[in-house]
Amino acid sequence: MHQPKAFSISTLAIVGPGLIGGSLAAALRAAGCVGHILGVGRDLDSVLHAQRLGLIDEVVTIKEAAARADVLVLATPVSAIAPLFEQLHPHLGAQTILTDVGSTKADVVRYAQQHLGADAVRFVPAHPIAGAEKAGPDAAQATLFAGRNVVLTPTRNTQARAQEVVSSMWAHCGARVLLMPPAEHDEILASVSHVPHFLSAVYMWQVASADNADLRLSLAGSGFRDFTRIAAGSPEVWRDIFLSNKEAVLHELRQVQEVFAQAETALLAGDEQSLYDFLERAALARRLWASRSGYHE
Amino acid sequence: MHQPKAFSISTLAIVGPGLIGGSLAAALRAAGCVGHILGVGRDLDSVLHAQRLGLIDEVVTIKEAAARADVLVLATPVSAIAPLFEQLHPHLGAQTILTDVGSTKADVVRYAQQHLGADAVRFVPAHPIAGAEKAGPDAAQATLFAGRNVVLTPTRNTQARAQEVVSSMWAHCGARVLLMPPAEHDEILASVSHVPHFLSAVYMWQVASADNADLRLSLAGSGFRDFTRIAAGSPEVWRDIFLSNKEAVLHELRQVQEVFAQAETALLAGDEQSLYDFLERAALARRLWASRSGYHE
Repeated sequence: MHQPKAFSISTLAIVGPGLIGGSLAAALRAAGCVGHILGVGRDLDSVLHAQRLGLIDEVVTIKEAAARADVLVLATPVSAIAPLFEQLHPHLGAQTILTDVGSTKADVVRYAQQHLGADAVRFVPAHPIAGAEKAGPDAAQATLFAGRNVVLTPTRNTQARAQEVVSSMWAHCGARVLLMPPAEHDEILASVSHVPHFLSAVYMWQVASADNADLRLSLAGSGFRDFTRIAAGSPEVWRDIFLSNKEAVLHELRQVQEVFAQAETALLAGDEQSLYDFLERAALARRLWASRSGYHE
Repeated sequence: MHQPKAFSISTLAIVGPGLIGGSLAAALRAAGCVGHILGVGRDLDSVLHAQRLGLIDEVVTIKEAAARADVLVLATPVSAIAPLFEQLHPHLGAQTILTDVGSTKADVVRYAQQHLGADAVRFVPAHPIAGAEKAGPDAAQATLFAGRNVVLTPTRNTQARAQEVVSSMWAHCGARVLLMPPAEHDEILASVSHVPHFLSAVYMWQVASADNADLRLSLAGSGFRDFTRIAAGSPEVWRDIFLSNKEAVLHELRQVQEVFAQAETALLAGDEQSLYDFLERAALARRLWASRSGYHE
């Protein structure tokens, strides 16, 4: 039998051991490719809870984590990354590899260049495309990334060794690792993640501000539930995502408005054929996606 | 112990024993308030399958069903209702009560007035707000309506006895029965059901027609899955819904566009506070709905 080269991280640090960070720790532990796991967090109660849950072995400061870790993962909202780079940089171990899990990448790459200087080559920007309804360490699960995509957006200066380690780390969590430039990542995520959130929130707000909102909402069913689920997401996190990916989101919104106007015109005209064609193309595209995506309905 | 007055339908006819019609049959059977169940359908294979599944007892023609049933339920798409009224009217039993399960109500009320003449008083327009991903008799389940809303939209001429029977029928399926005028029903459903479908389809079509659609779709995650799920629905059914409820849908779409423009302006301006307020109001409204709705997330 072919024996793959053993992959192991002696000391891993997770800054923010919540849903994503905690699941990464759990997945690597389950795969047997991590030694000791350090945990760092703004909220001490939450980090101590992650320790009680066995997600991390030891609670440390960001400075200690930077000095001791072989791989340090910033599993925080994007808005926390720049200040963390500043704090950890003076203490960074000679071989420590840095990575993140942020939803936008061009800004994170810029922060690394601004705050890490020559050490920015050891930062591998990453975005695991996985999530769940719930947040926090209690929601962490070793299987969260199985079959999911993780996008790495290295720059031309990113160290090959650092990129290889981060790529292997995610592969050992069962994820599919893809590479693309930061700007392309942000454009694609604007389309498939940020715009749906924007539309869902716009719609939810419109319904909730109607005079007879209570009556409307009492008659909302399972289609409404699914369509609006993402609108319940954290306003802080999503405000940051929209602002950090503003141009790409605005560009996609304009494309959506064009299709909106076409479909509205067909309805206004009572144009059965155009309306049918539009609905059919959407339905076929969605059904094809479902059959290929690996997501359970 | 208080013994409620026994409710039973001796002979029930289901025209279209699929998801909704079949579930109604199963729920009434489970509640022990139906004797014999007749089934009618355009697609003989499907009706025979419903019989094999035990949802109906006997396959008959629409004429026989009209003559023999105490309660005849039109569980077909709205577009099939007017022709069915025409076909069944000459054969309608002296006491037969008619009802439907259509997603729009003003048009169905108009069809009854046009095609049933004086017998329109025995038609009780109804809309059970329940559904599932799947269609057809195999998807039918006795618990589909438990805790769900069923809206009746009687007119001033609807017979009290007919309305009482249809109301009891749904109550015995575990549903909550509400009454409202047909136009109000259609306005509310435009808002909480038809507009989400329209937006989901617009969005799905926009993503699927992009040059790099395959790459985009390969990176779509669980938020995308939920937001677009309804876009996979039947193009025929939804075209009919949009056309039959055109004015109310167009009115709501214009309201959505206003909120869309406001949120877009806040993003364009980089207005953090407005963007946060908008996202927070949407999130709070969605979370409140989830806590009240009785729908599982």
